[in-house]
Amino acid sequence: MAWLSATYSIASTAADIRRRAEALALEQSVEVPLEAVVDPRIRGEVVARVQEVEPEGDGRFRVVLGIATETTGPEVAQLVNMLFGNCSLQEDVRLMDVDLPPSVAARMGGPGGGIEGLRAAIGAGRRALTATALKPQGSSPAELAELCRTFALAGIDLVKDDHGLADQRYAPFEQRVAACQRAAQEASAQSGRTTLYAPSLVGGPTALHRQAEFALERGVRIVLIAPMLVGLATFHELVETFPDLLFLAHPAFGGTSRISPVWLFGRFFRLLGADAVIFPNHGGRFSYSAQECAGLAEAARCPWGSIRPALPVPAGGMTLDRVDELLEFYGDDVMLLIGGALLGAGMRLAERSREFVEKVAGA
Amino acid sequence: MAWLSATYSIASTAADIRRRAEALALEQSVEVPLEAVVDPRIRGEVVARVQEVEPEGDGRFRVVLGIATETTGPEVAQLVNMLFGNCSLQEDVRLMDVDLPPSVAARMGGPGGGIEGLRAAIGAGRRALTATALKPQGSSPAELAELCRTFALAGIDLVKDDHGLADQRYAPFEQRVAACQRAAQEASAQSGRTTLYAPSLVGGPTALHRQAEFALERGVRIVLIAPMLVGLATFHELVETFPDLLFLAHPAFGGTSRISPVWLFGRFFRLLGADAVIFPNHGGRFSYSAQECAGLAEAARCPWGSIRPALPVPAGGMTLDRVDELLEFYGDDVMLLIGGALLGAGMRLAERSREFVEKVAGA
Repeated sequence: MAWLSATYSIASTAADIRRRAEALALEQSVEVPLEAVVDPRIRGEVVARVQEVEPEGDGRFRVVLGIATETTGPEVAQLVNMLFGNCSLQEDVRLMDVDLPPSVAARMGGPGGGIEGLRAAIGAGRRALTATALKPQGSSPAELAELCRTFALAGIDLVKDDHGLADQRYAPFEQRVAACQRAAQEASAQSGRTTLYAPSLVGGPTALHRQAEFALERGVRIVLIAPMLVGLATFHELVETFPDLLFLAHPAFGGTSRISPVWLFGRFFRLLGADAVIFPNHGGRFSYSAQECAGLAEAARCPWGSIRPALPVPAGGMTLDRVDELLEFYGDDVMLLIGGALLGAGMRLAERSREFVEKVAGA
Repeated sequence: MAWLSATYSIASTAADIRRRAEALALEQSVEVPLEAVVDPRIRGEVVARVQEVEPEGDGRFRVVLGIATETTGPEVAQLVNMLFGNCSLQEDVRLMDVDLPPSVAARMGGPGGGIEGLRAAIGAGRRALTATALKPQGSSPAELAELCRTFALAGIDLVKDDHGLADQRYAPFEQRVAACQRAAQEASAQSGRTTLYAPSLVGGPTALHRQAEFALERGVRIVLIAPMLVGLATFHELVETFPDLLFLAHPAFGGTSRISPVWLFGRFFRLLGADAVIFPNHGGRFSYSAQECAGLAEAARCPWGSIRPALPVPAGGMTLDRVDELLEFYGDDVMLLIGGALLGAGMRLAERSREFVEKVAGA
């Protein structure tokens, strides 16, 4: 019998927390009052267990449940179901962290390439990497490809689609991906350094599969995808189906539940196969703290059995004047993603893009 | 050019709300500062528009954005991306409601059978319906099938798997579904009234497809599935792939504190094809208000172009003594789901199940 440990933060009074924790253990396993569980095997091997309860301050308690891995199996949707299915509907509960038995984690697989795979695809040594985005949506494939070429000639390591790009009439998926990938490859040949283009994949399972196949055929090495938007298990299946692709995970639709972003983006996206994880950097237009960002980067990169490290990609309203500060904060195993601040340069786009590349290289 | 209207609730000061609303419009469309959008076509046809701003009290404002349906297309994941992708990460924003142009809604499809389809499958007239759940997990297929038989002989209309049942070693999917479906069919033949058995489907797209096929082959008419858990677009694709199945949507992993449950479970799950929607009833062990539950039932049932009405299924810690109150509250187009309170009867399970059926029939 193997058990995983799930850590929750629960709003409660001290008098009530033990009862609340026991109720959570039932909710996340058998979903009936304990009296209704008569089979001693189910009581002993299936019902979740309260392992720890301790005050966190501010009227909250840290509660660790032991959840039987027999109830979750090694499948993603069911794992999430047992971790945070019903209790996602209870507003006093947040999911903070999960410790999986190594054998369960290993079966989930993790990144196919991870930080090393991404560095190898770019041909970069140990330095920090640069990334930007193709925007705004509404642009034609030719306009986006031209933008991609400019960024690539400036030496930016990775140029991703805006995550809002899908299969719209003004930039159909196949035309856009073919044009941008060609631009990235031509510019790479011209500059002598590799720029990866990462098309955005979005849709139901069949569309995602078709998009991934098309991208691979065109020589694309890495794709952008939002695991919470397409479904965590759907994402995981895509990763397993396309071992030759690298996956850059986008956090879109990921802020909807009371789940710690450190665990969700840093640890769980990595476990499901993200080679790099985009997240909202502190001090931008999103609300994460410096401490959360540091924790997230650590979760993505730390040693974890056979699971390869994933590259943290802080993003969201970042500017060039923060490059030194961010490299100081994150170290070299990072990819800085600056989008709008480059595009805001207008006619000076190429120049500002080179400035970005040089600042990161020289830091 | 068609536009959808998305209504958000934003925490803000009066002085700041206009700027905040404009920033949200950019975030959910072009994702760059407006200065970086030079093409007048993109400014006019792609950038989202602030349509209304009005105070709600409590430091919040109701903001309606017009979002170009050209950016969303008729595809589910991309629609959600544009509605609540990035701004799900901004804690001051809640998504409250969405009005789609009728042509976009019609292409999403809605329920294949809806309330009428479900009534026809059961052979029930206009009365309220009854449902219960097979628990606890850890039980064997034979035990679950025996429970299913008892419930069916008592005349309960629908017996669903606990949503925690997946493909676990102690109750593998195929064995469980075959046994429970057989029990439901035999009991229905014996009692002369139809009881539907709804197996729980969970997993990645390939597993879901395989499970749905197996269920159909065994004569299953309706399946249980949690759209947020498997992914909204993955759910929608399954609905389209299996027009002969009815779908009972479970709210697991849907506790998006910042999406209105009225919209998500009542309106959006219906739009994606749920014939019936389970939701946490007021006064149970979850936190929805009576007003939210009434709104949710109304959203599921109200006239909506060609989109069939879906059946509301209030659940979550309900007891027999609430039947009259709940039928008064929801009317007859409802299915009452009582799980744990029946199982808690132990040896008196059959008796209490019949009592449930009679109470609903006699109300």
